[in-house]
Formats: sequence, C-alpha cells, structure tokens
Amino acid sequence: MFSQTTEYALRAMSCLAYAPESPVSTTDLATQTRVPSNYLAKVLQILASAGLIVGRRGVGGGYRLSRSPAEITMLEVINAVTPIERIGQCPLGIKSHGTSLCSLHRRLDGGAASIIDLYGGITFEDIVRGQGEPRRPLCDTGERRPSGLTFDGGSISPDAAADNRNQP
Amino acid sequence: MFSQTTEYALRAMSCLAYAPESPVSTTDLATQTRVPSNYLAKVLQILASAGLIVGRRGVGGGYRLSRSPAEITMLEVINAVTPIERIGQCPLGIKSHGTSLCSLHRRLDGGAASIIDLYGGITFEDIVRGQGEPRRPLCDTGERRPSGLTFDGGSISPDAAADNRNQP
Repeated sequence: MFSQTTEYALRAMSCLAYAPESPVSTTDLATQTRVPSNYLAKVLQILASAGLIVGRRGVGGGYRLSRSPAEITMLEVINAVTPIERIGQCPLGIKSHGTSLCSLHRRLDGGAASIIDLYGGITFEDIVRGQGEPRRPLCDTGERRPSGLTFDGGSISPDAAADNRNQP
Repeated sequence: MFSQTTEYALRAMSCLAYAPESPVSTTDLATQTRVPSNYLAKVLQILASAGLIVGRRGVGGGYRLSRSPAEITMLEVINAVTPIERIGQCPLGIKSHGTSLCSLHRRLDGGAASIIDLYGGITFEDIVRGQGEPRRPLCDTGERRPSGLTFDGGSISPDAAADNRNQP
C-alpha cells in the first residue's frame, strides 16, 4: 500500500526513535535499517526537508529526530514521502457533484480517512515501546546499533554513530 | 493513497457497471470517465489482462465487464493495478522475527489488512446503486453515456457505444 521509500523512511525514523538525543550516522542507519546507503541518503533528505529529522556534520554528527518520538506520528512520515490526500471535491470536475461526492469517490475518500486516522494515532514512541508485540523494529541487526538502544530482553551495547564523522 | 491509474481504472469499471451487458467503446468510456483516451487505453489493457473486462472488436464492439457488477469488488480493480500486499514476514529478513512481525511492520500490515477488508467488501453493484449517496459516479458527463444507464432521478437516454466501431 505504501512505497518502498515510505517503508524505508519509517525504518529510519524507528531507528532514530530508539535514541532520540543521539545523532546516528548515515552509515550506521544504513546498517541498522538494512537500506542501501545511497537510497537511504535520499530518504533522509526527504525527512530532513519535512522537518522530521535534523542533521549535524562533523565529529559525533549524524541525524536525530527533530522532536520527541512521542510527538511524531507514522502519518507525518508517510505524508513526507507521499501525502495521503482526502478527496474534497469531485475529481472529474462535475459541477453538480462539487463537494457532494459520488458513491465511488466517497468510498475512496473513506479509505483515505481511515488510514489517516489509523497512522495519525501511532507515534514512534508507540513503535519503539511496542504494545504487546514480542518484537521491536530493527532488533536483530547486529552490533551497529544507536547508543542507548534497549529492549525488553535487556540492554544493547552502545555503538553511537561512529563512522563517517565528516557527514551526517 | 491510490495512484492516478488506479483511480482511472475504478472510474472505467464504474462506467461499465452501469450497463454490464453492453460493450462501450474506448472513446465513449474516455468521454464518460473524463480520462485522456491514450491513458485510458492502457488502463483498459490492464483491466483486460486481469480478466476484469472483456473487449470485442468490430461493429457494436467495445469493453464490458467480464462478470456481474455484484461479483467484482473494488479491491480486485485496485489489485489489478498495484496489489495491496500484506506483510507476511520481516521485510528486513531478520531471522529472529520471521513471521512474528515487529511493532512497525505489524502496524503497516494492519493498515493493509484494513484496506483489503474495506474494499474487498464493496462491489460495483454497490457503487452504481449507491447506499444513501445523493450522487452516482459519472452522472453528469453529458449525453455520451452507456445504454441503460439509470439513476434514482430517472432514466438516462440510451447511447450505446457508437463510436470507433472498429476497435473496442
């Protein structure tokens, strides 16, 4: 239902949400998310342009969330890549329809509304905390993990953004 | 949420559902749906390849639904263009996740499931009959309308696929 780019963006945001105060390098993020580095770099640019993440160059640099994970919803990330648009008026431009949608477009709009409602209510705090799920995102991708990353099963050894210190 | 191609495909199917026994030419369909003819021709090829419509060349030819409108769901049309895929196992290939999805992918899968459930339950009979909606799809697109097209407000004059009789 969502594009590969959207799914990659959500992976990256999930990864950053584990340690929101600690910048993570593109290289580390690529390892954590298992997204090709070049592709991920473009995804991160989209997220930065949307104001969802902040990049910092230099030693200890990398990307971090622009706000608390509790304040960023999945919907914001989905919309940053490809906005989910409601249907406000007849897409055919039929004058007598106007904002009174036909049975087809009303149902299409209903689907969009339900997805907006669903993902507008899920924050990245929900994602990294989980709600009864036995698994957390990215939780078996090796040792190259953001610092402070913890799971129910115990602490993960810190590995703060160590590579590519000259780029975010 | 859905592509322009998907929305066009749904328009075409709605148009054909008004008169499922009567072939409608591509030209007439383009007029009814307000979709550019060349674009629509490609959309119709997709629908024909998926077995949702049947084309007939020659005099009185055109496209018609392959089954009753009551037997074709919106989901089938959506999937013919771009399938909505459930997430059956960890997209990152994390072994310890397997089919036990993490909190991120479980929620993405939940959204897909809800959309599949929604549109899998709506047929084109529902669309052309409407359920309390004041408007029907394509119901003010001029006189070039499939034969037998009727609305709550009364009958529409028949205008069976009259053009381009040498192509569907």
